[in-house]
Amino acid sequence: MRVLVPYAPEEPKTRLSDALDAGERAAFSRAMLADVLGALREAGREPEVLATAPVEVDASVTVDERPLTPAVNAALGSGPVAVVMADLPLATPAALERLFGTPGDVVIAPGRGGGTNALVARDPAFRVDYHGASYLDHLRAARAAGASVGEVDSHRLATDIDEPGDLVELLLHGEGAAREWLRDAGFELDLEGGRVGVRRA
Amino acid sequence: MRVLVPYAPEEPKTRLSDALDAGERAAFSRAMLADVLGALREAGREPEVLATAPVEVDASVTVDERPLTPAVNAALGSGPVAVVMADLPLATPAALERLFGTPGDVVIAPGRGGGTNALVARDPAFRVDYHGASYLDHLRAARAAGASVGEVDSHRLATDIDEPGDLVELLLHGEGAAREWLRDAGFELDLEGGRVGVRRA
Repeated sequence: MRVLVPYAPEEPKTRLSDALDAGERAAFSRAMLADVLGALREAGREPEVLATAPVEVDASVTVDERPLTPAVNAALGSGPVAVVMADLPLATPAALERLFGTPGDVVIAPGRGGGTNALVARDPAFRVDYHGASYLDHLRAARAAGASVGEVDSHRLATDIDEPGDLVELLLHGEGAAREWLRDAGFELDLEGGRVGVRRA
Repeated sequence: MRVLVPYAPEEPKTRLSDALDAGERAAFSRAMLADVLGALREAGREPEVLATAPVEVDASVTVDERPLTPAVNAALGSGPVAVVMADLPLATPAALERLFGTPGDVVIAPGRGGGTNALVARDPAFRVDYHGASYLDHLRAARAAGASVGEVDSHRLATDIDEPGDLVELLLHGEGAAREWLRDAGFELDLEGGRVGVRRA
């Protein structure tokens, strides 16, 4: 099975602009990508990066300048394909093995807020649409194609790191390069007050 | 194994005050409690409500007026005990079976933001402390007691409904009374704009 990890090296993670400057966001997103690739390899897979521009990374890279949806759809249709987002630094080999081991013509690991953080498409007719609440759209698309759906109930796969509040989860549960990068950049848990937050020293 | 569901009927869910008035919050929290009790029963368990005041509910109720931590600790120490929070309306029998089936002297289902949404304590020496980042505190307490720790990686168990933003997850993934209550109260997904939100009609 092909295992694609889409990655857009230009101006990544703009919703983290309040917490990180442009150079930091680039470095942080690369650390997250490295964690995802490493977890996939530990899960026995050979990930390919599907990038919008050339990127130097320790994996095979396919460049497709199109937006996420058409670029992924171009890879669907001939054999099973998995698509795992690059901003899932909490993904562990165990969580990814659950993704690959869940039965279904289409298997979805929903992201918090209605996204599709990881999926396996075994039905050659299935196509993705990552705009908006893609989780709901993908359920509908699978149903329309007569494809069975499996879901993966994983906090680690549901937690894409998009906004400053998500950094709390990385500091709490991360084990790889992205968490280390974040700690080296001075971020730590803020345990004062009611709810756990994040602060920069 | 005793399965406790702590519940505080007085002024529940104050962090939802921007979205729901006091009477609505009471009704909504009761619907969430009913969902959790129902899912536990479907998972083959007989839940007991551990309440801070008398409450009419279709389950046995133990009243303990003390705060959460001492009330739960009073129940620990003589045989295995599970503690499942009452604000987990996404909990399915399958997710709860993973909780009960995970090996470990202490099994934790972390909540988003560092809480402990569900746990199983099989070590009679283990005690809880729900203040602050209880997930980290419970890991430390288990280690200090020489107890092995299992973790349950579940988006459904990680999603306690505390703040308006959490309602999105309930509308997306809920299947029970709490989702129905919320929809009857006029809440629906807001699919316009970048990220999925929630709005009230």
